[in-house]
Amino acid sequence: MSAPFFFKRSGGLSLREIAALVSGEAPEGADLDLRINGIAPLDRAGPNDLSFLDNPKYVALAATTAAGICLTTERFAQALPPRVCVLRVREPYRALVEVARALFPDALRPTSLFDAGGVLPGAHIHPSARLENGVTVDPGAVIGARAEIGGGTVIAAGAVIATGVRIGRDCSIGANASIMHALIGDRVIIHPHCAIGQDGFAYVSNAKGHVKVPQIGGVVIHDDVEIGAGTKIDRGGMRDTVIGEGTKIDNLVQIGHNVVLGQGCLVVSQTGIAGSTRVGNYVMMGGQAGVIGHLDVGDGAIITAQSGVTKDVPPRGILSGSPAGDRRTHLKELAALSKLPEALQEIRKLRQEIEKLKKKKS
Amino acid sequence: MSAPFFFKRSGGLSLREIAALVSGEAPEGADLDLRINGIAPLDRAGPNDLSFLDNPKYVALAATTAAGICLTTERFAQALPPRVCVLRVREPYRALVEVARALFPDALRPTSLFDAGGVLPGAHIHPSARLENGVTVDPGAVIGARAEIGGGTVIAAGAVIATGVRIGRDCSIGANASIMHALIGDRVIIHPHCAIGQDGFAYVSNAKGHVKVPQIGGVVIHDDVEIGAGTKIDRGGMRDTVIGEGTKIDNLVQIGHNVVLGQGCLVVSQTGIAGSTRVGNYVMMGGQAGVIGHLDVGDGAIITAQSGVTKDVPPRGILSGSPAGDRRTHLKELAALSKLPEALQEIRKLRQEIEKLKKKKS
Amino acid sequence: MSAPFFFKRSGGLSLREIAALVSGEAPEGADLDLRINGIAPLDRAGPNDLSFLDNPKYVALAATTAAGICLTTERFAQALPPRVCVLRVREPYRALVEVARALFPDALRPTSLFDAGGVLPGAHIHPSARLENGVTVDPGAVIGARAEIGGGTVIAAGAVIATGVRIGRDCSIGANASIMHALIGDRVIIHPHCAIGQDGFAYVSNAKGHVKVPQIGGVVIHDDVEIGAGTKIDRGGMRDTVIGEGTKIDNLVQIGHNVVLGQGCLVVSQTGIAGSTRVGNYVMMGGQAGVIGHLDVGDGAIITAQSGVTKDVPPRGILSGSPAGDRRTHLKELAALSKLPEALQEIRKLRQEIEKLKKKKS
Repeated sequence: MSAPFFFKRSGGLSLREIAALVSGEAPEGADLDLRINGIAPLDRAGPNDLSFLDNPKYVALAATTAAGICLTTERFAQALPPRVCVLRVREPYRALVEVARALFPDALRPTSLFDAGGVLPGAHIHPSARLENGVTVDPGAVIGARAEIGGGTVIAAGAVIATGVRIGRDCSIGANASIMHALIGDRVIIHPHCAIGQDGFAYVSNAKGHVKVPQIGGVVIHDDVEIGAGTKIDRGGMRDTVIGEGTKIDNLVQIGHNVVLGQGCLVVSQTGIAGSTRVGNYVMMGGQAGVIGHLDVGDGAIITAQSGVTKDVPPRGILSGSPAGDRRTHLKELAALSKLPEALQEIRKLRQEIEKLKKKKS
Repeated sequence: MSAPFFFKRSGGLSLREIAALVSGEAPEGADLDLRINGIAPLDRAGPNDLSFLDNPKYVALAATTAAGICLTTERFAQALPPRVCVLRVREPYRALVEVARALFPDALRPTSLFDAGGVLPGAHIHPSARLENGVTVDPGAVIGARAEIGGGTVIAAGAVIATGVRIGRDCSIGANASIMHALIGDRVIIHPHCAIGQDGFAYVSNAKGHVKVPQIGGVVIHDDVEIGAGTKIDRGGMRDTVIGEGTKIDNLVQIGHNVVLGQGCLVVSQTGIAGSTRVGNYVMMGGQAGVIGHLDVGDGAIITAQSGVTKDVPPRGILSGSPAGDRRTHLKELAALSKLPEALQEIRKLRQEIEKLKKKKS
Repeated sequence: MSAPFFFKRSGGLSLREIAALVSGEAPEGADLDLRINGIAPLDRAGPNDLSFLDNPKYVALAATTAAGICLTTERFAQALPPRVCVLRVREPYRALVEVARALFPDALRPTSLFDAGGVLPGAHIHPSARLENGVTVDPGAVIGARAEIGGGTVIAAGAVIATGVRIGRDCSIGANASIMHALIGDRVIIHPHCAIGQDGFAYVSNAKGHVKVPQIGGVVIHDDVEIGAGTKIDRGGMRDTVIGEGTKIDNLVQIGHNVVLGQGCLVVSQTGIAGSTRVGNYVMMGGQAGVIGHLDVGDGAIITAQSGVTKDVPPRGILSGSPAGDRRTHLKELAALSKLPEALQEIRKLRQEIEKLKKKKS
C-alpha cells in the first residue's frame, strides 16, 4: 500500500525546498529542481520518494535503494549509490519527519471522511450548541445542548459531544468518541473511541451494598494534547481531572478521577493511573504500567513498561517491577534471582561440608 | 471548573435538612436556615459549599477554609475557624456522599444530552421494538428488532441495542455502547463504549486453521450493576455470562464467555477474567489483575492489582503476585528477594571460609 | 436464557444427519429420524438438545442428563442413561462444534440488527462509495468517500468506514467500529468498537515538546481474520501494519504501528504489541502479555499470559515472566524464590556454625 492511497500528495517538494527545510547540504552540481512527492523506507522508495539512512544496520540495503533523495549523515553518505541524490544532515530521521510534515499535512490530524467541510447532513446538533465558523461535523456525530466548538475543529462521524462541553480551535475529535463534562483546549487530537468525562469508579460500601458517590467534577484538557484510541478519562469527583499541555497519551489507557497529569508527559498504551494520583511534567510511562491512587509522581520520572507503582516517585526517578522499585535495584534483584536455583544447591553443599567438618571435629 | 457548570444545582439544602439527612449534630445556636448548594474540598469551598474533614493531614488546611458548612468528627471540630458552621458526624466522608446524592441527583446516572425526554429525532428504532413510557432515546441511538426497554431508561447518543435485547427500568446506556444477546435488569448503568454480548474467543484448531465455535449463550446482567467505559463482556458459549446484583465493574475490563460474577463484587480497571471462571460474591479485584479461565474464586476473596491468578481461590483468600499466591507468602518472598543480592555475596564468603577451614584441617 | 432466544433455530438435524456430519457411530436400533434443534451442556440439555461428554469429571452429571442425543467416546458411553441416544465419536467436543456450526449458522458472524438486508434508512453513505450487491448497512453506519465494500458484508449500526477503505466479501464490521486507511480481505470479522487505522504513537521530542510524526502507512488485514471488541490497530508509519491470514485477536488488544502479525496467530485479550515488532506464523500470546517494539517473534512461539517480552523470541520458544525468559527457566526461578525465605535463614545458621568452627579452631 502506498501513502498516496489515503493521503493527498501535495505538489511535492524540490531538493532546493527540502534542503532549506532541514538545513541540509546538497551535493555540488545537484539538480536543485529535482522533486519528490513521497517518503518511504530504503527498500520501498522509488525515484519520487525521499528516504533516510542513519543506522549501520541498513548500509547494505542502502546500496540497492531506488530512492530519489536520501537524507543521511556525512558518515553514511558513501553507502548510497550514485543514482541517489544524497542530502547530508545532522539528524536524518528528524529531518525526514520535518519533510513528511510538509508533504502530508493531512496526516497530522484526522480530516472529514466525507471530504467536506461544515455541518454535514446526518449530523445531529442541538439548537443551543454554538459552533464557530469553520467547524466540520461528519454524519452521525451528535452535539448536545450548550456545547461550544471552536473554528477549524473536526468532529468525526459518530462522535458524541455532550451537554455543555467546550472544545477549542483546530481540534480533531475521532470517530465514535464520547466527551462529556469537559473543557478542551486548542489543537487537541482525540482519537476514535476515547471516552472522556464519564463517572469515576467511586462507592461507599455498607451492609446494603456499594453506594455510588456522585462525581461532580469535570475534565480539563490543555492545548496540544493527543489522546489515543479507546483511552478512557474519568471526570473528577469534587475536583477536575486534568491533562497538561502537550501531553501525549497512547491507546487504551485508563485515567482515573481527579488524576492530574502535567505537561509534556508520554503515556504508552494500556497503562492505568488510578484516582487522585498527581503526575508531574515530562513523565514517561511505558506500556501496561499501573500507578495506584493518591500518589505523587515527580517531574521527569520514568516508569518502565508493566511496572506497578505503589509509592510516591521522586523527580527523575526511574522505576521498574511490580511492585515497582528503583530500576537499578530491580535489575540487581532480577540478576540475583537468575542465580538463585544454583545458589540453593550451593547452600545445600555448604551444609553438607559443614556437617562433615563438625563430625571430624568431634 | 465548578460543579454547577455541568450539573443542575437543586435549590440547595439547609443546615436543618443536612443535619437530619446525616444524623449530624449542629452547634448550639447555629442558624438552621443556613443553606449550601454545592460541595467542595476544603481548599476550594466557598460560603455556599459543604466540605468535610476527617484526616489529620488536612487540619492546617482546614484553618483556612471558606466553606459554609463542614462535616467533621468531634476530634477535628476545633480545627475549623469560627466562620465555618461545623456539623459533627461519625463518618464525615459518608455523610458528605449522602448530601452530594441529595444535592446532585442528576450526577447519579447519565441523562439525555439533549436535555429532553422521549425518542428524539435522529434515533433509529425498529418498529417491532417495544419501549415503555418514559424511555429517553438520544439522537443517533439505534434500537433493533424486538428489543424491549423499560420506563425511565435513557439510551444515550450512538448506543446500539441489538435484536431481542431486554433492558429493565431506570437504566442508563452510555454513548456509543453496543449491547447484543443480553438481558439487563433494573437500575443498571452501562457507561460509554461498553460492548456487551459479542462472541467470545473460542476456536478449535486443526490443520486448516482455527475454526470458530459458535457462541449461542447470552449475557445476563442483574439489577444495580454498573459497568465502566469501554468494558467488554462476551456472551456465553452454551451457557450465559452472568453479572450478579450490585456488582460494580470499572473501565476497560475484559469479561470472557461463560464467566459468572457474583453479587456485590468490585472489579477495578483493566482487569481481565478469562472464560468460564466463576467468581463468588463480594470479591474485589484490583486494577490490571488477570484470572485465567475455568477457575473458582471464592466469596469475599481479594485479588490485588496486577495479580495473575492461575489457581482456584478459597473464600476470603487474599492473593497477589503473578502467578498469584497467598499475599503474605508473596510479601515474604518479595522481602527475601530484596536481600538476595547480599545473600549471594554471603554464600560466596561462606564458601571461601569453608575452603579455608578444610585446608587447615588437612 | 436459551439459545433460540437470540438465534434462529434451523429446522434442526436428525440423528442420521448428525452421525454423517461427525462420522459418529449410532447405537444399533437407534431411531435415525430422532431430531434435535439445540445444543446444551449436560445439566441444561432437554430432549431436543444435543450434548457431549468427554471428561471423567462429568460422569456423575451425565447419569442425570435429559439430553436427546449425547456425543461421547467409547470410554464414557456407559455413563449415560438409556433414555439418551449415545453417538460415539473420537473427539466429542470437536464433533459438537461441527453440529453447532450447522445448527446455528447465524451465530458464526453478526447479522443485521434490523433483520434486514441492503442499505437501511439512517445509514449515511458518501455518493462516491461503491458497494457490491448484497451489502447490508444498518442504521447509523457511516461510509466515507471512495470506500469499497464487497458483497455479503454486513456493516453494523454506528460503524464508521472512512475514506478510501476497502473491505472484501462476507465480512462483518461490528457496531460502532471505526476503520480508516485499511485494506481488508474476505470473511474478516471485526467486532464492536474496534478502531483500525488511526495514527500510531510517534513523536520526535525536542525543546519545544513532542512533535508528531505523520503516519502515512496503512493497515492490511488478510482473509479470515477475526478481531475482538475494542481492539485497536494503529496504521503504519511509512510501511503498513499487517494482520496475516486466519489470525484471531481477542478483545482490547493493542497493536502498534508497523507491527506485522503472521498467519494463524492467536492473541488473547488485553495483550499489547508495540510498534514495528514482527510476529511469525502460528504464534500464541496469552492474555495481558506485552511485547516491546522492534522485536522478532519466531514462528510457533508461545508467550504466556502477563509476560513482558523484551528480546527476540526464537521459533517455537515458550516464554513467561516479566521480563520474559524461557518458560522452564522462569518456573525454576519461581520455585527457587518460594524457598528463598527459608534459605536466608539457613544462610544465617551456616554463618553461625562456621563462626563456631573457626573459634574452636583458633
